[in-house]
Amino acid sequence: MAVDPTPELHPDVAVLAPLLGTWEGSGTGEYPTIDDFAYAESITFSHVGKPFIAYTQRTKHPDTSAPMHAETGYLRVPRPGSIEIVMAQPTGLAEIYEGAVVGAVIGGDAPLVIDVRSTSIRSTTSAKEVTITERTISVTGNDLQYTFRMAAVGQPLQHHLSATLRRV
Amino acid sequence: MAVDPTPELHPDVAVLAPLLGTWEGSGTGEYPTIDDFAYAESITFSHVGKPFIAYTQRTKHPDTSAPMHAETGYLRVPRPGSIEIVMAQPTGLAEIYEGAVVGAVIGGDAPLVIDVRSTSIRSTTSAKEVTITERTISVTGNDLQYTFRMAAVGQPLQHHLSATLRRV
Repeated sequence: MAVDPTPELHPDVAVLAPLLGTWEGSGTGEYPTIDDFAYAESITFSHVGKPFIAYTQRTKHPDTSAPMHAETGYLRVPRPGSIEIVMAQPTGLAEIYEGAVVGAVIGGDAPLVIDVRSTSIRSTTSAKEVTITERTISVTGNDLQYTFRMAAVGQPLQHHLSATLRRV
Repeated sequence: MAVDPTPELHPDVAVLAPLLGTWEGSGTGEYPTIDDFAYAESITFSHVGKPFIAYTQRTKHPDTSAPMHAETGYLRVPRPGSIEIVMAQPTGLAEIYEGAVVGAVIGGDAPLVIDVRSTSIRSTTSAKEVTITERTISVTGNDLQYTFRMAAVGQPLQHHLSATLRRV
C-alpha cells in the first residue's frame, strides 16, 4: 500500500498533539527484586487521522545497545480531560490504563501532563505477575519526561522507572 | 539510537521464522450488526533477537485508502507447540490469546499454522464489548492467510474476517 500524506489530527486527540513525533533519551530503573539499571530509549507517537495515537517504544542497554524492553499500544481521549491507554508488553502483559490529561497551553510554558493508573493488567500463562502500574508523562516543547510506578511480584506499588527524552 | 544490524532470531521463537517480514494483501469482513466490507492490509512481523516477535497491522479502504483498523502486539512461544499473543487495539481493547503453533516443514509444503483463542479481552470504559475472539494464521512460503472469529455486542462466536496476503 502506498504511504498516504499525513492526514489532519483527529479533533478528539488534538490535546495530545505535543506527543507526536520521535523522542530519544535515557532513563534509569530500580526495584527491590533487581539491580538498578540504566537504559537508552526511543519512543514514537504517531497517528493516521483516526481518534487515537499509536505508541511504540524500545529501550537498549546504554553501553552495548543490546535490546532491553519494548512496548506498544494506543492512546484515546474518550472525553475532554480523560485518557485511555491500551498496551501490549512482550513480557506477556496486556494492560489498560485510564486517567487524566491536562493539555499544554499554546504559546505558554505549561506542559501536557498525562497521569494514568492501570484498570486492568492481564497476563499470559508464562508471564510474571504485575498487579498495578501508574504512569505520568509530561511534555514541554521538545522535552518529554515520564515516571512509572509498579506493584509486581509481591512488592507494593513503588517507583520503578524515570526517563527524560528529547524530540528528534 | 543507531539501528543495529538484525540480530539472530531467538531460538524460542525460531518456529515463527516464516512470519518475519512485511505482508500486503486484502481481506473481507462480515458481522450481523454491520454491512459486509473489504479492506487492503499491511502486516509486519519483526524481531530484535529477544524471545518474542513484534506484530503491527494496518488496514485501509480498498478504494479510498482511508485508514480502517490497526492493531499491534507481540507473539511468544513459552514452550514448543504453544503460543501466546498479547495485543492492543485502538478501539480500546487489550487482548491475550493462547493456543497452538505447528511449525512449517523446512523444504516441504506444510504450512506454519497458528491457532489461538482469547483467554482475556479487557476494554477501556468507552470501548464496545467483545467477549471471545479466535484467530487462525497460516503461512506457506510467501503466502499468508488468516481468519478471525468473534463474539461481540451480544452476538455468538462467528466468522468476522478473512484475508490473504503476500510477502513483499
